[in-house]
Order: sequence, then structure tokens, then C-alpha cells
Amino acid sequence: MKVYNADAPNPRRVRIFLAEKGLDTDRVDVDLSGGATRTPEFLKRNSLGHVPVLELDDGTLITESNAICRYFEEIHPDPPLFGAGARQKALIEMWNRRIEFELLMTVGAIAQHTFPFFSTRLRQVPAFADAQRETAREKWIWLDGEMSDGRPYAAGDEFSVADVTAMAAIQVSEFVDAQCPADLPHVTAWADRLRSRPSWSA
Amino acid sequence: MKVYNADAPNPRRVRIFLAEKGLDTDRVDVDLSGGATRTPEFLKRNSLGHVPVLELDDGTLITESNAICRYFEEIHPDPPLFGAGARQKALIEMWNRRIEFELLMTVGAIAQHTFPFFSTRLRQVPAFADAQRETAREKWIWLDGEMSDGRPYAAGDEFSVADVTAMAAIQVSEFVDAQCPADLPHVTAWADRLRSRPSWSA
Repeated sequence: MKVYNADAPNPRRVRIFLAEKGLDTDRVDVDLSGGATRTPEFLKRNSLGHVPVLELDDGTLITESNAICRYFEEIHPDPPLFGAGARQKALIEMWNRRIEFELLMTVGAIAQHTFPFFSTRLRQVPAFADAQRETAREKWIWLDGEMSDGRPYAAGDEFSVADVTAMAAIQVSEFVDAQCPADLPHVTAWADRLRSRPSWSA
Repeated sequence: MKVYNADAPNPRRVRIFLAEKGLDTDRVDVDLSGGATRTPEFLKRNSLGHVPVLELDDGTLITESNAICRYFEEIHPDPPLFGAGARQKALIEMWNRRIEFELLMTVGAIAQHTFPFFSTRLRQVPAFADAQRETAREKWIWLDGEMSDGRPYAAGDEFSVADVTAMAAIQVSEFVDAQCPADLPHVTAWADRLRSRPSWSA
């Protein structure tokens, strides 16, 4: 099998996940800014023109970074990054979604609605990017309150896929200058903890 | 345990999921339009002020409809609505996310950015709603192409949580008048199939 990869936040989620699992998988790097995901050949692999895509040896194509991560979780369960047991699996899913929807999508929208790269990929509404910039600040404050119980990772004591998603959100937030305010101690400590992992640079 | 429920799309996803599993769980109906999710008491259960919330007997609080569904999948695996085996689990996750991100969020944003109900809940950008209305039409066309292989359900031969998410998207799309164009045969047939399930009215 192989992963179609590029220098972008969602492919990086898969790279971080694989690094945390200690897995090495064949990669095909595609030239995103050169339009390589918009060719007829690539659109047969993912009609949405997005990376990453996992192609299995039987030809099955799996898109969506979180679905690709789940595939690897199933075939290589240790360490369990989606959790073990009903309660922990649900809490990790909850936090993965909270971080994706409240943070990653918020800061991602700032890029999507202002960067020329996206001008042919979606209907840009710059006023929406402005609104999301304000919202991002509120969401960091919200998350700092949530993490004020001192837990080391997003969903509790163990590093999980929710932290992988956070690693993407933190990087994108810096890219669009909507990063966590420095006076929020709990998120700042957690982000430093994530940045110190070898997988950060995967 | 009990589910905090309301007359809204995300609580409905949990109600449909439970109906498909044949499960009956205690519900606490909250008055969404009356502000019941904005009280200090409710915000202790979900700091985002969203429903649904699952409260376990040990006091654990699980938010996010998909995380709640996953909890029930783990404790009542049959029928497996998140799939069985690595490949099918990944494909269902892929389609659940595609339908949530491409369709449900698109039509949901039309409501969120125009309805008075949301005016105190997020920064409304009416131009973003207009753009999403155009996008919704394109996404229905995209999905019709994807389903032109004739498969009966979103992720293949079996009904799954991706179809549950679609049932929410279809209903919201009708609510904001951004429904599937009637001349798209594959999505129309699939939507009719979903509408005919007893769980549609859960």
C-alpha cells in the first residue's frame, strides 16, 4: 500500500500518526501547488482532489486523514491512539472532533478564505475569514479553560489522535497568525509538550 | 445513563443511531430555543452549549453526536454501524466524514449564518451562507456522481453511520431550501431509501 502525501496539514496528520505508531509506509509525494491533485488521474483516486489518499494493494482508495489513521489503528493497534474500551474511545472521539471543529477548521478557514491557493478550490468569503480570526481567539480561551484540570493531553493522560489533530491545528494557527495567546498557560504547556515529540517534524 | 436531547439535527443523529440499534435510552429533552443549553448548569455538562450530551452513570460526560454513537457501538456492537474489519471501518469513516464535511456542514452553515437563533451563538456572515448555498448544489452533483455505481448506501452494501449523518444532512438541506436537485437520480433514490426507514422519524 501507499499514501499520497503532500506538504499540507492533513497529510501531516497521517505522517504524525504513522510516526507515533512507529510505522513506515510507502509515500508518493504530489506537488500540491503545481496542481497535481487536480489532474484527471488524481481525481480518479479522490474526486474531491484532496490529499492524503491511502491506496491499498487491492486498489481500495481511502481518503480523509482520520479514516486513513483509523485503518492503521486497526491493522496496528499498539499503541492505541483511538483509545481502548467504550468510555475512552468515546472521549477520544469527542476530543478529536472538538479540536478539529472548534480549532483546526476555524484557523483553516482563515487560510482557505484568504490565500490565493484556494481561490480556485472554493468560494472565498474574506469576511468569513475575519470572523474566524476573532473566533479562533475565543476558542483558544475556551480550550485553556477545558485543560485547566492539568491533564497532559487533549483527552486525558494518554497521547491520542486528538493530539495529532491538535498538532495540525497549532501549526496552521501559526501559519495564519491566529496562534494561541501566550498568556493562556494550560494550552501553552500542552502545545509545548506536543512540539517536543519527535513526530512533530514527521 | 441518559442523553440530553433536543429537536435539532445532531441530537437526531443519536436518536436515529439508537433506533437502528434497537436501543432505548433515557432522554432528557431540553428547550433549545428557550436557552436551556446556555444555563450555567448545562454549560457544566458541555462548555460549548451544544446538544446532544451523553451522561454515563459514573458521571462521565460525552459530547459530539458521533462520539456518543461510537460509545453505543462499543457497548452494543450489533448491527455494526461503524463497520467490521479495517477496510470497511475505514471506508465508513471516510464516507461519514465526506457526508458530514461536504454536505451537512455546507447546508448547516446556511442556517447558522442566516437564522436569528444563531445570532448570539456565532459570528454570522450572510455572504458565507450565500456561498454555501451555491456550494451545496455542487456537492449534491458530486455525490450523485460518486453514487452512480448503484450502491444502496453511502459506504457500500450496508447501512452505516454515514447514512445516519446523511439523514441529518437531507433534513437540514430541506429546511434551508438547498435540497438535492430532483434530476439527480442516484442521490434521489438513496435519499428515498433512507426516508423509508422507520428510524427516519426517530
